[in-house]
Amino acid sequence: MARIVILGAGMMGSAFALPLVDRGHEVRLVGTVLDDAIIAALKAGAEHPTLRLALPREIQPFHATELASALDSADAIALGVSSAGVRWAARALAPLLKADLPLAMVSKGLGWNGAQLDILPDVFCAEFGRSALAPVAVAGPCIAGELARRVETCIVFTSRDHAKSVAWAELARGPYYHVLTSEDAVGIEVCAALKNAYAMGIGFVAGQHEKRGGAPGSVAMHNAEAALYAQAIREAEALVSALGGDPRSASGLAFAGDLNVTCNGGRTGRFGRFLGLGVGRAGAIAAMNGATLECLEILETLRHGLSALVLRGKLQDGVLPFLTHLMEVALDDAPVSIPYARFFRAPHRP
Amino acid sequence: MARIVILGAGMMGSAFALPLVDRGHEVRLVGTVLDDAIIAALKAGAEHPTLRLALPREIQPFHATELASALDSADAIALGVSSAGVRWAARALAPLLKADLPLAMVSKGLGWNGAQLDILPDVFCAEFGRSALAPVAVAGPCIAGELARRVETCIVFTSRDHAKSVAWAELARGPYYHVLTSEDAVGIEVCAALKNAYAMGIGFVAGQHEKRGGAPGSVAMHNAEAALYAQAIREAEALVSALGGDPRSASGLAFAGDLNVTCNGGRTGRFGRFLGLGVGRAGAIAAMNGATLECLEILETLRHGLSALVLRGKLQDGVLPFLTHLMEVALDDAPVSIPYARFFRAPHRP
Repeated sequence: MARIVILGAGMMGSAFALPLVDRGHEVRLVGTVLDDAIIAALKAGAEHPTLRLALPREIQPFHATELASALDSADAIALGVSSAGVRWAARALAPLLKADLPLAMVSKGLGWNGAQLDILPDVFCAEFGRSALAPVAVAGPCIAGELARRVETCIVFTSRDHAKSVAWAELARGPYYHVLTSEDAVGIEVCAALKNAYAMGIGFVAGQHEKRGGAPGSVAMHNAEAALYAQAIREAEALVSALGGDPRSASGLAFAGDLNVTCNGGRTGRFGRFLGLGVGRAGAIAAMNGATLECLEILETLRHGLSALVLRGKLQDGVLPFLTHLMEVALDDAPVSIPYARFFRAPHRP
Repeated sequence: MARIVILGAGMMGSAFALPLVDRGHEVRLVGTVLDDAIIAALKAGAEHPTLRLALPREIQPFHATELASALDSADAIALGVSSAGVRWAARALAPLLKADLPLAMVSKGLGWNGAQLDILPDVFCAEFGRSALAPVAVAGPCIAGELARRVETCIVFTSRDHAKSVAWAELARGPYYHVLTSEDAVGIEVCAALKNAYAMGIGFVAGQHEKRGGAPGSVAMHNAEAALYAQAIREAEALVSALGGDPRSASGLAFAGDLNVTCNGGRTGRFGRFLGLGVGRAGAIAAMNGATLECLEILETLRHGLSALVLRGKLQDGVLPFLTHLMEVALDDAPVSIPYARFFRAPHRP
């Protein structure tokens, strides 16, 4: 059995510890500087404050200041930080790691380096200084609160070095945590980043329905939601392809699956609902009471990236009408007006 | 503007009249022999009993016995019958139609002719006696009650004669009814038929959750549902491919979209929930109070078809673990035990 350090004790980092301790690994859960209250609660034997669950006693909590001792004789590392924390984590780990341990990361997003979009494992490596590390990215539909309660979960691991995905999959898979591996590191990571943007857009429809006086139920605006869902898959295929990934990844766990689970709960859909209600960008942000909105982050990043792709002739103009509208609404404060008539014009595989 | 006859006054046949009258067509809605109460209500000026909605006065109701007069000088015909009614409709129409009018059908299913699976437009033609008719099939996510309330809906028309899809799309499309066309008649129709089977299986999870004492909410068993959803797309790709269609249709409106909408309400998911609760096949059927269960019909048909495909070497054994389990549960009364560990083993495109 291995000694595994998880850096980041938020909901997803902490939930990731469950399948690992259930496999018999020794797990050290290290908070970031933002996780002090969580680690203090765990050290006091209380339940995890955001997961609202008592974690198994085998998970050992460490404060950020204890990172060096937590790393002592570690066999593998998992990053449970947000996309914004990836660079911080690379800088924190670089001086402490002598050998390149197997490293997995649950963060989802894309980076913009001023010239092109980068997947987060590459962002990590650039900051860490050693690209041979080839971090393993974790994608697919996974609500942390469910994983922490041992709900059956199917997930995909990917890396620029496939052997590393396979090795991490061997560490992590178990009776309720089903780990697949994919060689499409770029496609899988682009999918993982995109789903928050599209989940916001599918949320528009619930807001529009409510605005018209509609109530939730089996007759509501599900036809429209389902159309947006299918269009989102088509656009993800196009974008993955333009970025050099395998478009088929978009109809798998990393996009179709993850978009499905994201629409079943969570803040991104609620944010989209506020926009659909017509309260405007500022109103919707205010209504979210300071919650982190990854969808805004990824849309900002994508806007840079898409312009570059169109300029280089790697993406035809007009094949992403839904994504374009998401940017107009969420970044430019345009009113919601979903361009259904422009949907499904793109070829299956651009 | 055209004079259009819709045969079948159930929810979907009647809802299909809305975009047509809104385009200015004259619409004659003819009940089947099972629709007498609906037609009587409409003739009396009451609301549609199952849609629970007053239809526009421009929709003219006719009893089944009045079919011949309703067809007088008709320009096009739409079938709003269930899959079981397709052969009946072909026999009813054959003696009355001199010319081959443009014919669309909203029925979803597959036929088994003793040797192979047939798409319903082919089943219709075989019974009708003239294959040049090339019926246009309507697929994609469409809850009838929503279409009747003019909810934005994206739908796909397909036919073995693409010009006929294009012509019907011109007749039907309008501001809230967005019609795409596809040349993949086989793939689209297989997708449309399959989605009920998989929607039942995704419903298992809600039942399992409830059985364990879980309540609905954003932390439930959504990870598992999303995994099943993604696996369903992969299996639909494999099956469409084996039957000679384009596997890419499975990630579009006709499967990914339609499965999404079906999981958002409707009897198929409720039936799956009862199976997930563990009441057994007979118990689940009884709990549905006599509702038509298309999922059982399609699973019976598929069982014949799959054996034939495997025998002919067109389908590898083991690439459809989810569908196989659906058959075991719904047809053979096996307990629900979803084979997650066997998922995602199939190649992207078998």
